[in-house]
Amino acid sequence: MATSLSVESGTKASEPIRVNDGVLRMAVIGYGYWGPNIVRNFHGQDKSRVVAVCDKSSKSLDRVRHAFPDVRTTNDCKELLTSPDIDAVAVVTPVWTHFELAKTALENGKHVFVEKPFTCTTAQAEELIELADRKKLKIMVDHTFLFTGAVRRIKEFIDNGTLGELYYYDSMRVNLGLFQHDVNVLWDLAPHDLSIMDYLIKEKPEAVVATGERHLNGVADIAFMTLYYPNNMIGHINVNWLSPVKVRTTLIGGEKKMLVWNDLEADEKLKIYDKGVQMNGDGVYDLLVSYRSGDMWAPRVEQVEALKMEAAYFVDCVMNDKTPFNDGVAGLHVVRMLEAADQSLQQKGKIIQL
Amino acid sequence: MATSLSVESGTKASEPIRVNDGVLRMAVIGYGYWGPNIVRNFHGQDKSRVVAVCDKSSKSLDRVRHAFPDVRTTNDCKELLTSPDIDAVAVVTPVWTHFELAKTALENGKHVFVEKPFTCTTAQAEELIELADRKKLKIMVDHTFLFTGAVRRIKEFIDNGTLGELYYYDSMRVNLGLFQHDVNVLWDLAPHDLSIMDYLIKEKPEAVVATGERHLNGVADIAFMTLYYPNNMIGHINVNWLSPVKVRTTLIGGEKKMLVWNDLEADEKLKIYDKGVQMNGDGVYDLLVSYRSGDMWAPRVEQVEALKMEAAYFVDCVMNDKTPFNDGVAGLHVVRMLEAADQSLQQKGKIIQL
Amino acid sequence: MATSLSVESGTKASEPIRVNDGVLRMAVIGYGYWGPNIVRNFHGQDKSRVVAVCDKSSKSLDRVRHAFPDVRTTNDCKELLTSPDIDAVAVVTPVWTHFELAKTALENGKHVFVEKPFTCTTAQAEELIELADRKKLKIMVDHTFLFTGAVRRIKEFIDNGTLGELYYYDSMRVNLGLFQHDVNVLWDLAPHDLSIMDYLIKEKPEAVVATGERHLNGVADIAFMTLYYPNNMIGHINVNWLSPVKVRTTLIGGEKKMLVWNDLEADEKLKIYDKGVQMNGDGVYDLLVSYRSGDMWAPRVEQVEALKMEAAYFVDCVMNDKTPFNDGVAGLHVVRMLEAADQSLQQKGKIIQL
Amino acid sequence: MATSLSVESGTKASEPIRVNDGVLRMAVIGYGYWGPNIVRNFHGQDKSRVVAVCDKSSKSLDRVRHAFPDVRTTNDCKELLTSPDIDAVAVVTPVWTHFELAKTALENGKHVFVEKPFTCTTAQAEELIELADRKKLKIMVDHTFLFTGAVRRIKEFIDNGTLGELYYYDSMRVNLGLFQHDVNVLWDLAPHDLSIMDYLIKEKPEAVVATGERHLNGVADIAFMTLYYPNNMIGHINVNWLSPVKVRTTLIGGEKKMLVWNDLEADEKLKIYDKGVQMNGDGVYDLLVSYRSGDMWAPRVEQVEALKMEAAYFVDCVMNDKTPFNDGVAGLHVVRMLEAADQSLQQKGKIIQL
Repeated sequence: MATSLSVESGTKASEPIRVNDGVLRMAVIGYGYWGPNIVRNFHGQDKSRVVAVCDKSSKSLDRVRHAFPDVRTTNDCKELLTSPDIDAVAVVTPVWTHFELAKTALENGKHVFVEKPFTCTTAQAEELIELADRKKLKIMVDHTFLFTGAVRRIKEFIDNGTLGELYYYDSMRVNLGLFQHDVNVLWDLAPHDLSIMDYLIKEKPEAVVATGERHLNGVADIAFMTLYYPNNMIGHINVNWLSPVKVRTTLIGGEKKMLVWNDLEADEKLKIYDKGVQMNGDGVYDLLVSYRSGDMWAPRVEQVEALKMEAAYFVDCVMNDKTPFNDGVAGLHVVRMLEAADQSLQQKGKIIQL
Repeated sequence: MATSLSVESGTKASEPIRVNDGVLRMAVIGYGYWGPNIVRNFHGQDKSRVVAVCDKSSKSLDRVRHAFPDVRTTNDCKELLTSPDIDAVAVVTPVWTHFELAKTALENGKHVFVEKPFTCTTAQAEELIELADRKKLKIMVDHTFLFTGAVRRIKEFIDNGTLGELYYYDSMRVNLGLFQHDVNVLWDLAPHDLSIMDYLIKEKPEAVVATGERHLNGVADIAFMTLYYPNNMIGHINVNWLSPVKVRTTLIGGEKKMLVWNDLEADEKLKIYDKGVQMNGDGVYDLLVSYRSGDMWAPRVEQVEALKMEAAYFVDCVMNDKTPFNDGVAGLHVVRMLEAADQSLQQKGKIIQL
Repeated sequence: MATSLSVESGTKASEPIRVNDGVLRMAVIGYGYWGPNIVRNFHGQDKSRVVAVCDKSSKSLDRVRHAFPDVRTTNDCKELLTSPDIDAVAVVTPVWTHFELAKTALENGKHVFVEKPFTCTTAQAEELIELADRKKLKIMVDHTFLFTGAVRRIKEFIDNGTLGELYYYDSMRVNLGLFQHDVNVLWDLAPHDLSIMDYLIKEKPEAVVATGERHLNGVADIAFMTLYYPNNMIGHINVNWLSPVKVRTTLIGGEKKMLVWNDLEADEKLKIYDKGVQMNGDGVYDLLVSYRSGDMWAPRVEQVEALKMEAAYFVDCVMNDKTPFNDGVAGLHVVRMLEAADQSLQQKGKIIQL
Repeated sequence: MATSLSVESGTKASEPIRVNDGVLRMAVIGYGYWGPNIVRNFHGQDKSRVVAVCDKSSKSLDRVRHAFPDVRTTNDCKELLTSPDIDAVAVVTPVWTHFELAKTALENGKHVFVEKPFTCTTAQAEELIELADRKKLKIMVDHTFLFTGAVRRIKEFIDNGTLGELYYYDSMRVNLGLFQHDVNVLWDLAPHDLSIMDYLIKEKPEAVVATGERHLNGVADIAFMTLYYPNNMIGHINVNWLSPVKVRTTLIGGEKKMLVWNDLEADEKLKIYDKGVQMNGDGVYDLLVSYRSGDMWAPRVEQVEALKMEAAYFVDCVMNDKTPFNDGVAGLHVVRMLEAADQSLQQKGKIIQL
């Protein structure tokens, strides 16, 4: 995956130096729930600015003009996707529109920053990856959680062996609404966990089982997903739009230590427990189970806005020709798991090999 | 309070009036973790007394003699199971011994109180039920949770329509250990939830999917179970012996209200939320989702010891010839779901129709 | 306290109709920690707009220009205080500057919105009240908490008799920092509680006792304040800049019900307990104490931004000539209690009669 | 381990070697709320046994006989206090009876274990200390909390400098009831904190300020106590019998680290925060305040029953002639602070020098 812009000798004239004044000029398509955060962060840093925002709703565009008087607004996204004044496009629209918008942007020589989940199908994701590769353009999928202090510290604890070999990753992500029309609760909430697992866990899942049920608008509003990994590692995700309470808790069990991540805690988001079980003896009834129960430790977690870091990272990757770790391939991994989960869900838990 | 078993005319001489002095004479087999509670409660009430306790371990019997100087101890359970001085036997031993012990007790004309899960297989459960029926004896399975103030209040809220039609029942029951040698984590922890669901929910589950993994001693130590019910009701149970934190939380989502039961809370175990979602409109994209978010209410939960109530209920059922709601059939329901879950678990989530 | 602008016949030319176009023109003095919120809220509503912001720091003014490009900036507050284009001035500066700034504003015919605590001394507060009265201008002291959903609901529960006669009000308001240079922790944190108590409790305190200690910069960083009310009602405030954890919890004990307000809870900020104690019998040793312990109830609390409501209320009071409940007199009450607390603190708990 | 009382030459015949068979023979006077725990622990260890229990209530004595069939019961405490078969007496009665009972016991050559608070007055405490001294007998005051895992670990963290110089000790100990007839809430709840502070803090308090109020039975049911220590260390205790929620939380602020002890937490009772404030610069307005906010750490706390440890320690002190750290002098310290607090309370916060 050689993607650098400059390393390749013989770069042709067809590859203009787009970011020639050191400031990435961005267009943002979609100004609904998340769009304002995207605009604020890409507009609020030195190395990028938002040139234009597109939305179908004139009311949304009014809000843009109020908050960012110096940003151009339009309801014609084609214009933006083809404009020579735009270096990169952020696609912050419903998932079923991602493919067309990202494709057009790439075809017109623009880097893309796409909301999660990346696409509706793995085929779409693969086509975009191939296209970007060919055009030497960057794709970044907005897996925002990877830029939080919590996930970055968990990554450290896994990578440096603090937790030891992983036994399980069990996430509960439930709350009341917001219902989506076009996707079920798995596509809405599980991408967070799937992107985090893809980032944290070295091995890739081998098979997926999903169960769930629909109650109101014809799409599953509660779902449970099991991911089988090599070496008896297991993943589990519990997502629910019909919970009276909001829960954002992940348990990660390791051979050496265990971790609880409660993202709703203001301060002590991560707790690492010096707890474990050891088996001694060899026969079933000779087993001596010994429990270890020691201190708990809540490491400090950095409190910067994740999207701010991600926006800076996008600009850095584009300008310095780096491949982001949350690139199209990372997006594809998540889409592949969602696609498999959907298949399993429809067949009431039939295992889907990946 | 006509309590003799002989009320039924035509009863033969083979059915002696066992409880002739108004006090049920009990033997308790097994004095490990739970046995002391059984002895204390059956011994501590007016209408029953524990005549004898049997255990293989002489150390356990020492503990009996220390705590209950007036209770006979023995390591010969056969003697107790055949003794004419015993009216009823409490079987508080590992699950694989339940069937033989309960069968012998019933064959010798004794009522039985059996620890959960009832038996290892549905076939065993059915045989014991048939035997008790034939001998006109009572079986009670120790589904202690059904006697807690929390579960009894939840039952009220479901039966009187407070929650409305049920959407889901989602339970998390995780902690560090205690590892069992002979059963996996489903057989250890899920019977609590399965017996509660069997008690609370009018419909019976139609199919089961279970996933999980083993890490230490060859039996699953983490498992997830989905139960499909009629009318899109769904059940889910998350059990784990390798969790650094203890969690005992159940979410119950209803059409009208939603309930959270946190059994680890000292005071506010139940919280009822006046929250919900309503869909209006008919086309997919015309849907108007409206969220309702009102008060929360923590009803007072009675704080009597559940096992004390259950012991009194056992005596009442025996003396007054009542069929307990936690009888052999209730025990069978739980075993059937565990058996199905085991099959599913072994086939990595294959759905098992019930 | 006749304060209307127009009702009085014979109003002289010196009292121009300031708010003639239906939009209150405001100047904000001070753009530190809280200033941005003041500007955002007064600028973000239809009936007022921020014409200019003044701050000594050019860096702060840069931030104003970035966030509010259409707002004029200056470091000369005199100019604003005398400008004929300004109807009202928000004083968002350190407390020792309030008096001079507010006085000049009033003298120049401007209504004032002053940060809490109102002034450094009761004498200053009284002078400003008298001046505003004479000039028929409004003073509002920024007791923001009075506009929160939580305090407004507590007020209802007290006013409608839900809690019954009040026994005590006990607040803990502690966290790490922020240290103030010019005031001690009482002047920094207690005004919240004092203004809330002044608003909620019909009776006024009769005496104050304060204790505390200094550890770092010569002003008390931890302090405890007791307020004696008529009828055995007692108030207590615990404030601390050196606490490792943030606590914002108030217990309010009433004859009929008891309330806990935890302002750090996202959802269930208020909990009302149907708990109480009753004494029967007349002799000391005949007393029968009976405890009542019933349900707990968490009423829904409205989640609007308090400062937004307050800003609208300020404009309404000015335009429609209403006396705000958080007027100069309310501000004076708080200052009087702080002044008394300071005296008591310096004399290690000597009681100060109010 | 030569530890007999007879080591001192010149001991007269009037001082028999009482504990000659290696088992301390105890009488327990008072079998109300706490008495059963005292009997169970002194009876349940190898080196002591409870010979007799005395209580005025025959119902209480029935409970003794039920739970401890081998313990003699009586309602005549004089008999026990003079019996030659008793080595030591545990006084577990209301505080106003402690002095007479303990005095008689000491006069009759018995060691005493006295419930907290030690006595009603410092004069009484001093007389008992002098008497025990003269008779070479031990007094232990039941400051149970000193034997908890939590307090012992806090002592370590203070003694080994982990917390650094102490800034404050702030305890909140509130709940609904239990009302006492003969003492106010300070005498009921504050002895816990006062004994802990006496144990943990090297310096002794110099002055006390107490405020509070009565609402029901003529004694204060809510009270606040400030203790002034040398070097700007300050203590504060908040006790309340009319709180709807139970709180047992202590904040301890140190120069280097800060600690929160929540005794109601099952697992993480202690949390140590690597947080602090530092002042740099010398002028008031040049001060640079820097906050340090690092990890939190919850050290494992041993979970043995405190009273079990204390009972063993009492026997050890008696048998091996050691002076317990919770001796009469420790008890006197607590009584002195309570006495001063009462004086202050009655004079609405007047400072009382110690």
